[in-house]
Amino acid sequence: MTLQENVRKPLDRLSEALSQQMEAVNALIRDRMASRHAPRIPEVTAHLIEAGGKRLRPMLTLAAAQMVGYDGPYHIHLAATVEFIHTATLLHDDVVDESSQRRGRPTANLLWDNKSSVLVGDYLFARSFQLMVEPGNMRTLEILANASATIAEGEVLQLTAAQDLATTEDIYIQVVRGKTAALFSAATEVGGVIGNAPADQVQALFDYGDALGIAFQIVDDLLDYGGATETIGKNVGDDFRERKLTLPVIKAVAKADAEERTFWSRTIEKGDQRDGDLEHALDLLARHGAMDVARDDALAWSAKAKTSLQALPDHPIRDMLTDLADFVVSRVT
Amino acid sequence: MTLQENVRKPLDRLSEALSQQMEAVNALIRDRMASRHAPRIPEVTAHLIEAGGKRLRPMLTLAAAQMVGYDGPYHIHLAATVEFIHTATLLHDDVVDESSQRRGRPTANLLWDNKSSVLVGDYLFARSFQLMVEPGNMRTLEILANASATIAEGEVLQLTAAQDLATTEDIYIQVVRGKTAALFSAATEVGGVIGNAPADQVQALFDYGDALGIAFQIVDDLLDYGGATETIGKNVGDDFRERKLTLPVIKAVAKADAEERTFWSRTIEKGDQRDGDLEHALDLLARHGAMDVARDDALAWSAKAKTSLQALPDHPIRDMLTDLADFVVSRVT
Repeated sequence: MTLQENVRKPLDRLSEALSQQMEAVNALIRDRMASRHAPRIPEVTAHLIEAGGKRLRPMLTLAAAQMVGYDGPYHIHLAATVEFIHTATLLHDDVVDESSQRRGRPTANLLWDNKSSVLVGDYLFARSFQLMVEPGNMRTLEILANASATIAEGEVLQLTAAQDLATTEDIYIQVVRGKTAALFSAATEVGGVIGNAPADQVQALFDYGDALGIAFQIVDDLLDYGGATETIGKNVGDDFRERKLTLPVIKAVAKADAEERTFWSRTIEKGDQRDGDLEHALDLLARHGAMDVARDDALAWSAKAKTSLQALPDHPIRDMLTDLADFVVSRVT
Repeated sequence: MTLQENVRKPLDRLSEALSQQMEAVNALIRDRMASRHAPRIPEVTAHLIEAGGKRLRPMLTLAAAQMVGYDGPYHIHLAATVEFIHTATLLHDDVVDESSQRRGRPTANLLWDNKSSVLVGDYLFARSFQLMVEPGNMRTLEILANASATIAEGEVLQLTAAQDLATTEDIYIQVVRGKTAALFSAATEVGGVIGNAPADQVQALFDYGDALGIAFQIVDDLLDYGGATETIGKNVGDDFRERKLTLPVIKAVAKADAEERTFWSRTIEKGDQRDGDLEHALDLLARHGAMDVARDDALAWSAKAKTSLQALPDHPIRDMLTDLADFVVSRVT
């Protein structure tokens, strides 16, 4: 079995197992991204939503609800809510990062303009709140409102922390919870809550989403410096060029001597980058084993995700989620 | 009595009558704009929230709740929610309009950057959703979530409609409902709902906020072309220079001959503006009585606001709201 087959399998199996429900989610998304008055809204939204994202987050909600025996209909609304929040944050992220490519296509801020991305993002946030109100469940509302605040807080924190060498691993994890894990954990938790699962199972679902999200983001940050697998198709060094302080660099900075510190300060803090700097950065990461210890952290979070699942009932979906936790780290092992 | 005294009175009287509750709202706002992790958030928020806005919108919520006999505590949360939504939209508006001044101070996008304004705005939206969940009232949640969607939809609609001479008065009112009236009407409506007012009073509160907001925005758009009073301190012609098609121009375009249409098309649609164009635009508005008929529209909305109040119980606050409806149009009469 090649790496690619191994990698795609858990997501594909989840997709198959949840295909009917995912169709209902997609229909609801299409319905709610319409606008009676402003045709710009569905244009921008469709560009992003129909670009073939994996719909991982709404699938997590459906998977959680199914595992705890819920049989609808409101997991559909919650899953669509989660995808709308995700899409809104992508629109705003691309403005903030001045990105020009997303999912292999030009970004909305490039095709239309920053204004449209900001305002259509706001519209999708508002639509997500309308959707999350519909199930009439106060607890799922709290979870999703709190996740939205954590996401925005993490993004602001990243603005100030990313180029600051004093950023600790704790702050990095806080940023990662904001930008990635908060929506994963909310997605799984609301699936359990709407299904009326006992408190320990709801907690387990939260823990799974949280740990999976953190593992996922650490792997993403590792791959940016090459990781163990260069076959995935990411550009090495984007984070370095954008001066984003991620886990491998934080680990290398912690072990840096005075000369190395000067190098990191010049390239990341001051943004003064020259030919050969990326190669030197990669050397420093290798010298201190920074990639290996960061990968060990990703593996530990993946293991924590799998352990969390033990509190949940035996279920084919549970096995797929276990495999999913292996999958997210398989790209660096 | 000078114009200024006449103008300030109803808002000041409302402020006095609701001062204790407004203090509670301000305390809650200060508490919720904090961030454990990202100090940039309270910096940006405080810059805007403490710049001395009039807090008109939260006052409307408190006024509505008081008139229908509610005695707390959740009108405070709803009022703070409304102010947070308003502040978030201001942050995003200033990015979209590339503004440099707001309430007589440099805008946040200028003092920090567009990124901070987008992300802190997102944070305040999320905080507003957390706040609106706390009262545990599904109907107020629906109203505020719907208002948020109407606001964002109106802003997107304005993006495309503002520079298009085909924009009708109906579309203009739709935009105005989005950018201004939807939050006014949600503010008054939730005050009635949380106070358990009968349906006809809730409807009257909605109608009051809606009509007041539309009158308020038409007056704002009139003053941009000079209005009847030049003493208010607005720059004449900002909307013209920014190519925003507002009610006076829509009315003048409707009566334009071929030559005039060419002028509007060149200046507003194509944005090709030359010396003397603003003066010519003012001439055209005068020639067709466009300012007068737009002012009549504002007066009609103000009258509608006052009429709506008749469904509400006799109350000193009700008299202040009546005077407030006179106040918003007093700047152009």
